[in-house]
Amino acid sequence: MTEMAGLTPKHFLWEVRDRIAVVRLNRPKRKNPLTFDSYAELRDTFRALPYASDVDVVVFASNGGNFCSGGDVHDIIGPLIGLPMKDLLAFTRMTGDLVKAMIGCGKPVIAAVDGVAVGAGAIIAMASDLRLATPGAKCAFLFTRVGLAGCDMGACAMLPRIIGQGRAAELLYTGRVMRAEEGERWGFWNALHTPEALEAEALALARRLAEGPTFAHGITKTQLNQEWNMGLDQAIEAEAQAQAICMQTRDFERAYRAFVAKETPVFQGD
Amino acid sequence: MTEMAGLTPKHFLWEVRDRIAVVRLNRPKRKNPLTFDSYAELRDTFRALPYASDVDVVVFASNGGNFCSGGDVHDIIGPLIGLPMKDLLAFTRMTGDLVKAMIGCGKPVIAAVDGVAVGAGAIIAMASDLRLATPGAKCAFLFTRVGLAGCDMGACAMLPRIIGQGRAAELLYTGRVMRAEEGERWGFWNALHTPEALEAEALALARRLAEGPTFAHGITKTQLNQEWNMGLDQAIEAEAQAQAICMQTRDFERAYRAFVAKETPVFQGD
Amino acid sequence: MTEMAGLTPKHFLWEVRDRIAVVRLNRPKRKNPLTFDSYAELRDTFRALPYASDVDVVVFASNGGNFCSGGDVHDIIGPLIGLPMKDLLAFTRMTGDLVKAMIGCGKPVIAAVDGVAVGAGAIIAMASDLRLATPGAKCAFLFTRVGLAGCDMGACAMLPRIIGQGRAAELLYTGRVMRAEEGERWGFWNALHTPEALEAEALALARRLAEGPTFAHGITKTQLNQEWNMGLDQAIEAEAQAQAICMQTRDFERAYRAFVAKETPVFQGD
Repeated sequence: MTEMAGLTPKHFLWEVRDRIAVVRLNRPKRKNPLTFDSYAELRDTFRALPYASDVDVVVFASNGGNFCSGGDVHDIIGPLIGLPMKDLLAFTRMTGDLVKAMIGCGKPVIAAVDGVAVGAGAIIAMASDLRLATPGAKCAFLFTRVGLAGCDMGACAMLPRIIGQGRAAELLYTGRVMRAEEGERWGFWNALHTPEALEAEALALARRLAEGPTFAHGITKTQLNQEWNMGLDQAIEAEAQAQAICMQTRDFERAYRAFVAKETPVFQGD
Repeated sequence: MTEMAGLTPKHFLWEVRDRIAVVRLNRPKRKNPLTFDSYAELRDTFRALPYASDVDVVVFASNGGNFCSGGDVHDIIGPLIGLPMKDLLAFTRMTGDLVKAMIGCGKPVIAAVDGVAVGAGAIIAMASDLRLATPGAKCAFLFTRVGLAGCDMGACAMLPRIIGQGRAAELLYTGRVMRAEEGERWGFWNALHTPEALEAEALALARRLAEGPTFAHGITKTQLNQEWNMGLDQAIEAEAQAQAICMQTRDFERAYRAFVAKETPVFQGD
Repeated sequence: MTEMAGLTPKHFLWEVRDRIAVVRLNRPKRKNPLTFDSYAELRDTFRALPYASDVDVVVFASNGGNFCSGGDVHDIIGPLIGLPMKDLLAFTRMTGDLVKAMIGCGKPVIAAVDGVAVGAGAIIAMASDLRLATPGAKCAFLFTRVGLAGCDMGACAMLPRIIGQGRAAELLYTGRVMRAEEGERWGFWNALHTPEALEAEALALARRLAEGPTFAHGITKTQLNQEWNMGLDQAIEAEAQAQAICMQTRDFERAYRAFVAKETPVFQGD
């Protein structure tokens, strides 16, 4: 286990307070595009998170009124044109590895989306566990508009599970913007908040989770992803095993003792 | 095949009328908590249902204004504290076996939820085929609040399919109450009815199903669960086989004869 | 590759214009029922589409105020009564093959549903990629009403992914009509339009897709179906490969060049 509070990434902002890591991209004038470097550094950071002893929840925040404008046309798309397949696949695998790292990081990730979340920015929101946005948030899986397919970084698998197959197909074929109220109605956004309140709400939600049984939260995350394509009987057996593990934590006992004493349990994540 | 009308369970109420079994927990003063005994007896009862000759539909009803408050803190959670893994797993497997038994019972199960449906109570509603509730129904997958993970009795697999991955994640991580109108909007509740009307509506729906082609209903239930993680082509082939079986039932012929005679078909479930 | 513009099907109408094929059943007085012959010819037509050089998008349109009334009682259900299993299975496999052919045809299919879409008509809408309807559209998976199970042509697998498991179960067990506003609220219909506007809207959407990167659209369709029961990691790797393929298309370069030149890209589907 290592501490991640002291991390000083080169390509995005990073802050750890009260066991909550806040990450945000940092090119607000250009609506926070991704580059090869920030992709790779985000991937490595999320890959380190399972071993972090001082982080229980991650908030992926906006910056300067926007979340993320996706892969930069000049920094990423231009250089990709004409590359041999080997290099193209190395790139698409790296972007996919960011999603895999987010899924596998062992801590709940909360996206707090103001303004633009398009392309890979929409994917980062999608790959988060919980999603808050502002009424003006514009989310678009716009790959089709740059000549590509909707199947980017897991979108054809994950988006249908969040908003349903028909709505996902529409967004992925047309690349159109999902308006914030649509996204809330469809289950993409868990809630909408004003731009002023957004980050405070995300942090409050993060704090609530960080004050909960964080070991158990990690198991919840594992199972939500692990059971993705299990049969029903297999999923139920997997949960019997996973929950039995949680019943041997001290947090389970702490909750019981607090209940008996008519107190609020103080969870400690073990 | 055996008859189940005469069943006299010790730990819950049971009544069979017009081929509809109505089951309800019976500790209304404590909002109908589950105990080791009622878990086991419910499991055994649902396991017997595939062989019941006199039951076509099950209604899991409320009692005294509440559905089920889940595993009792004193009767269940207390005794689990400090148990060896072998015994914990035996318990979580037994609870999972109740869900497996509900899924495998071969008859549609309709939950009629008034008041509280929390913890394992929320799971029983989730594992039913159809769900009716009152506007005041409070459903919470509150495992996290007792120090456990959201992955209980299949919730991480089943809940996302019912209400979407993002909404399921929120309920499972936070343990918060899903309000009735949310649950209706999200597709968890099929409909809301007043407390006065709830059970009559559930029985009317049950009667409608019981008057339908009940053998075919059993096949519908089998396929809804069986195709959970099949590929599309495999699911379509599985349905070709399953529907061909139904085309050899007399109910299929009865429906055709009634149509030709401009009458209402009288299905008999064979 | 072959051209399909000149196709003159016997059992439905077929027209290709501007790379959009419009198919519609043609027994409007009887609300466009299917027959053994039209099933088979539709299956063969969708099977030919992957090799069509002149079709990029398909619109499955209504005719005379209705979409499709399903398998005709006299032409289909009557003759099925009493058939040996071999022949029943041959029939259910043929109907399933129509859905497989729609899924595998490589081009987006848009259903434009006015009036009645019941039985196999509801299935054709369900098996389309995008679905538009009128406020008066009546969609019912009414198999149970003819004595059959809800598992017809993939419904128990596909419908839950579109509208959620609970709502799908209700429609499949009861066979009741899904009202148009319900269908829009649940994500079955992508949008509702007046009967007067419906076909123009469907064609406009089709044109928008046909003017997009059609090779990439084909990959989007492949992945939406291919990843149906993959694990998350496998789906992400599959998308890394599929998107790398799309990055070697000229349409990807065309989009980039147009962006740099501040022009609208003109995609050509290669």
